[in-house]
Amino acid sequence: MIDVMTKMKIASLPFLVSIVIILIVNPTHMTTAKDKVSWHLMPMPMYLEAGQGKLCIDNSFCIRLTGHRDSRLPAAASRMLQRLQRITGIPFTASPAGETSAPKEATLEIHCSGSGEPVQSISADESYTLEIDTRRARLAAPSPIGILRGLETFLQLVDLDDQSFFVPAVKIIDRPRFPWRGLLIDVSRHWEPGDVIKRNLDAMAAVKMNVFHWHLSDDQGFRVESRRFPKLQKIASEGKYYTQTEVREIIDYARDRGIRVIPEFDMPGHATAWLVAYPELASAPGPYQIERFWGVFEPCLDPAQNRLYSFLDSFIGEMAALFPDAYFHIGGDEVHPKQWNSSARIQSFKERNGLKDNRDLQAYFNKRLQKILEKHGKKMIGWDEILHPDLPHSIVVQSWRGQKYLAESAHRGYLGILSYGYYLDHMQPASFHFKMDPLDPENVELTQDEKKLILGGEACMWGEFVNPENIESRIWPRTAAIAERLWSPVDVQDIPDMYRRLEYLNDRLELFGLMHASHYRAMLQRMVGDEKADMLKTIADLLQPSGLGGRVRARKYSSLVPLNRMVDAVLPESKAARYLGNLIDKLLADPQRSPDLDQKIRESLVRWRDIKDPAKPVLEQSFLLAEVEPVVDTVSQLCTAGLKALEYIESNEPPPKAWQLETSLLFQKAEKPQAEMFIAIAPQIKKLVDAADAIR
Amino acid sequence: MIDVMTKMKIASLPFLVSIVIILIVNPTHMTTAKDKVSWHLMPMPMYLEAGQGKLCIDNSFCIRLTGHRDSRLPAAASRMLQRLQRITGIPFTASPAGETSAPKEATLEIHCSGSGEPVQSISADESYTLEIDTRRARLAAPSPIGILRGLETFLQLVDLDDQSFFVPAVKIIDRPRFPWRGLLIDVSRHWEPGDVIKRNLDAMAAVKMNVFHWHLSDDQGFRVESRRFPKLQKIASEGKYYTQTEVREIIDYARDRGIRVIPEFDMPGHATAWLVAYPELASAPGPYQIERFWGVFEPCLDPAQNRLYSFLDSFIGEMAALFPDAYFHIGGDEVHPKQWNSSARIQSFKERNGLKDNRDLQAYFNKRLQKILEKHGKKMIGWDEILHPDLPHSIVVQSWRGQKYLAESAHRGYLGILSYGYYLDHMQPASFHFKMDPLDPENVELTQDEKKLILGGEACMWGEFVNPENIESRIWPRTAAIAERLWSPVDVQDIPDMYRRLEYLNDRLELFGLMHASHYRAMLQRMVGDEKADMLKTIADLLQPSGLGGRVRARKYSSLVPLNRMVDAVLPESKAARYLGNLIDKLLADPQRSPDLDQKIRESLVRWRDIKDPAKPVLEQSFLLAEVEPVVDTVSQLCTAGLKALEYIESNEPPPKAWQLETSLLFQKAEKPQAEMFIAIAPQIKKLVDAADAIR
Repeated sequence: MIDVMTKMKIASLPFLVSIVIILIVNPTHMTTAKDKVSWHLMPMPMYLEAGQGKLCIDNSFCIRLTGHRDSRLPAAASRMLQRLQRITGIPFTASPAGETSAPKEATLEIHCSGSGEPVQSISADESYTLEIDTRRARLAAPSPIGILRGLETFLQLVDLDDQSFFVPAVKIIDRPRFPWRGLLIDVSRHWEPGDVIKRNLDAMAAVKMNVFHWHLSDDQGFRVESRRFPKLQKIASEGKYYTQTEVREIIDYARDRGIRVIPEFDMPGHATAWLVAYPELASAPGPYQIERFWGVFEPCLDPAQNRLYSFLDSFIGEMAALFPDAYFHIGGDEVHPKQWNSSARIQSFKERNGLKDNRDLQAYFNKRLQKILEKHGKKMIGWDEILHPDLPHSIVVQSWRGQKYLAESAHRGYLGILSYGYYLDHMQPASFHFKMDPLDPENVELTQDEKKLILGGEACMWGEFVNPENIESRIWPRTAAIAERLWSPVDVQDIPDMYRRLEYLNDRLELFGLMHASHYRAMLQRMVGDEKADMLKTIADLLQPSGLGGRVRARKYSSLVPLNRMVDAVLPESKAARYLGNLIDKLLADPQRSPDLDQKIRESLVRWRDIKDPAKPVLEQSFLLAEVEPVVDTVSQLCTAGLKALEYIESNEPPPKAWQLETSLLFQKAEKPQAEMFIAIAPQIKKLVDAADAIR
Repeated sequence: MIDVMTKMKIASLPFLVSIVIILIVNPTHMTTAKDKVSWHLMPMPMYLEAGQGKLCIDNSFCIRLTGHRDSRLPAAASRMLQRLQRITGIPFTASPAGETSAPKEATLEIHCSGSGEPVQSISADESYTLEIDTRRARLAAPSPIGILRGLETFLQLVDLDDQSFFVPAVKIIDRPRFPWRGLLIDVSRHWEPGDVIKRNLDAMAAVKMNVFHWHLSDDQGFRVESRRFPKLQKIASEGKYYTQTEVREIIDYARDRGIRVIPEFDMPGHATAWLVAYPELASAPGPYQIERFWGVFEPCLDPAQNRLYSFLDSFIGEMAALFPDAYFHIGGDEVHPKQWNSSARIQSFKERNGLKDNRDLQAYFNKRLQKILEKHGKKMIGWDEILHPDLPHSIVVQSWRGQKYLAESAHRGYLGILSYGYYLDHMQPASFHFKMDPLDPENVELTQDEKKLILGGEACMWGEFVNPENIESRIWPRTAAIAERLWSPVDVQDIPDMYRRLEYLNDRLELFGLMHASHYRAMLQRMVGDEKADMLKTIADLLQPSGLGGRVRARKYSSLVPLNRMVDAVLPESKAARYLGNLIDKLLADPQRSPDLDQKIRESLVRWRDIKDPAKPVLEQSFLLAEVEPVVDTVSQLCTAGLKALEYIESNEPPPKAWQLETSLLFQKAEKPQAEMFIAIAPQIKKLVDAADAIR
């Protein structure tokens, strides 16, 4: 693995290195001759040089494919044309043609100079160049994957002005910073059908991600058909599983988009579903039932039994044939010690084998498991608990507990990927994820050789609080910020510019079929019945859900609890709060500001303060909204405080002590979750109040 | 046919007639014990009696199917559960069970007492009864189709209050007023792929429509695979056609939802596509090309040739096997006289056969065509031009030119359906369609026996100005008003109540998968590029598109012109204008009104007046929006006039002559289409201005 990686870097870097150093500039400073153009690219490419003028897009637009033939290319060109039609509304009648039948001058010439791999690997060359002048565009890549990446860039360049749709003249030379840019979707805790997976694969492709990590088994369900062990899906899935035909269809769909698919079967912990079907594999006597709650549970595979390994040999043999990727994820996280500790048999097994603790026992299990994987042609990947000197260096460690675990694995010579900081269920803003760098020099002190072991990262969408209705709004658009961190040069760090591009991308993703915005509206509409949902949306837009921790502390949740409350609908990151925050920052930074700025802030605060009275009767009519009433009260109080603070600031008059005390209590309340939600404008308004308090 | 119809009426009516007369009351007056409940049913059922209390819906909800087994029933129950999940957000784990495995007390007991027809016919029994009390719901019907209808009613009853989701206690006895309630979709002028068709079938089923009329061939393209005459799809479709497998899939999909599928192959006019593939069938020498423009064109089949009839015999034989419905639509409309008149051979054929004019010649053709259809087991349906005494009474005449043609066909003893007044491309409001009754006593003086010949009607979605992106917003929700006219008792006439229910239905349709709202937003977003589309939506919400006539007069359109302009996006009926109109009507009707009413009107007018300045730079940046700038100017002037008029009304002061002249010129301008659109608020504001003018 290390050799392959090194080779790849050597092969593709040299001629670019000097260019990169010299020419990479802040993307917001790059414009074409037309000032109107601002780049909407996400992730930003490695190198971009603005040209003069633009290439018009009208219904004469056509594509020609030359060079190496790969079945993925005409399919990708076809999909690209369909999406170009969605962007422009222009019906493109011509299907993308090969060398023989196309017109001599195609608008977009695509040249693929090399063959693709039969199974896309970690060393796939994803580089491409895209050159656009006023007459045509040329996309070239050494492999089909590079062409796929370049087509996404081309689509992101499409814009319109007062004359036409167009792409700006530009030269782009691009390749990813990290070869592993993944998204995990947990389909065990809540089931996600194939069309949800496909929509997410489309969105991943749009931001050049290349690994779909499919978390297929956990305590709450086993989600894939096994023909050798059919009890797994028959007893342990409640009918919610992918058939092998569906799995192959999704793998093909992903491959067409340059995405590898890595299955995860979590073991030896998080194993209840296996044991519902095959209790004889457990470390304690059964029977077992599908787990309905969230957490870390006792049921655990029994590593002291030989029959476990023959079962896994057979099961992994079957799955290894189904999933073509070189890697196979075995989980390995959060092994509950109870069953192992309570079993005299397991204790004596440990003694016999010189395994001093459960960590050693798990390493013993992993070592045997790794041999089985190797026999079936697979490399092991697991969560950072699997790190143990007994395992060979072919494995990949996925770090979820902290960057120091990633550093530790690199120190020890293991390949690693980062997921710490990329947990989408923690409901952090995109800027938080964006700042999290697998090679962050502050957190990771590594040698150059050790750095090469860090392959990239994966965003993780755990399934406790997502279902087919809200999963897309939890994954997108925030995951695009992670995709950019993993693809773009390390110096792409401008957060306001990231948000500008993220918003644009967000609309595009919905245009291409993602349902995050339409499901959000539908969920709000549900809560008000036959009332208009507009007002509720104004409220919802100011709120953010608690993360996993806050929610499980708030109530005893299970998989049977409907995800139909406000907290399940509201978006992870409030755009309204961000906008307000930007205005307030400007206001506080500039005593000479225009009064328009104050007025804008005032208008928003008045509008939100006054929504309480009309909202009340609507909220009262719906059992789903009873818990939102006090939240709206608090919103109103916060806005009142903000307006008063604005007055003090404008008059430069110190606020009275009583008001200071009162607002201080208010913010103590507002900082705590209410109905498992946070009021996203509270910290922004607090800045105003703090500024008022500081007046002497 | 007549016998069957009569029999059906006799079989199902008697026991209901008296109840209907006594108990049908204005639906808005019917409430359950809880005042909160207002009916959202559309179409309104024949008989509805509100009960006491409600039946809660939580995750214990389950369905039991008893009685006659039909494969459509478990599938329908399953779909119903999925949609109930979309409505409530509650995950229903249990699949609908048969008699053996279900719990003793299901929440919804479904009993089907008779078998369905192998091919759904015009005399299918669609009646059902639905009784809901506080413990459970019972849905019963003599046929599977009735169960399908009742399930839609059940879903429309689902509501929420301050305690739970529920359905109100109610007793409903229901059956349609007319047996033929159709929607035509023209897929020739613009192609509509299978998923668009399926979404529309879902929406049709939701409002209990039962005929999908598939306009498959016209001058602009031939849209279905023929294995006997493959040149039809190969040369005359530009690759845009349904394979026979897809056709079967769609027919099955429709059948599952209680919808018949009737194919239309338009002949002898509207025939260019046939002749592109087989020019030898034409009345004048070829070659022919796919027509790209809209209108009535010369190419016409040659009824004087025997080979035409052997071709049609073979073609219809193939299609008759593919489409199981008893009816087969042969078009027959708008035959251009040119080719027939110019051909000496055809002229002499007419003389030889004693055919005095082209009408006789078309009747000759239709007679032979009808024999071919009969041979293949099909009944003929055609547009009202086919009406001719030489044709047998088994045919159905579809009246598009006026209700008098429908009356005429009934006078002559022919079955008929109405499409006049149901043309969706004319961009009329839902209220217009709602008032159009196939048995309108003002227009149709018919005997009781003649009335029985009127089978119902069909909404028509012609394809000149719709594509997969905007077709749903043109069909829905307006078609639901037609569906109600054709299903509900004749005395369901309350237009405000119709709109109230229509809006609710509209949200539901989007929830169930229709894309009219999301495509509208995407089309607006396209026009502003990276700007926020909210402001553009505020403007767009005030506009309405010209109908077919206005658009073809405005420009020379073709199938290659992108439908990506404002006129293609704006909705056929402006809700904002209707709301404003309601407020203005209230204001003008009540001199003692609360000043709140004036204030509401004033706020809207001020908002729309002032949108001009912020809109200008956004509109200027987009070539698609240049034409909208003057429209926004006019909107602004109208609002200014309206505000001034409001002042005169409030002060009861006669406006000066100069102002009257100025506003009169303004409305002259505003009444004409601009950028092929109408400003929907103009007629509402005119009422204010007229009221001001009337002050003495």
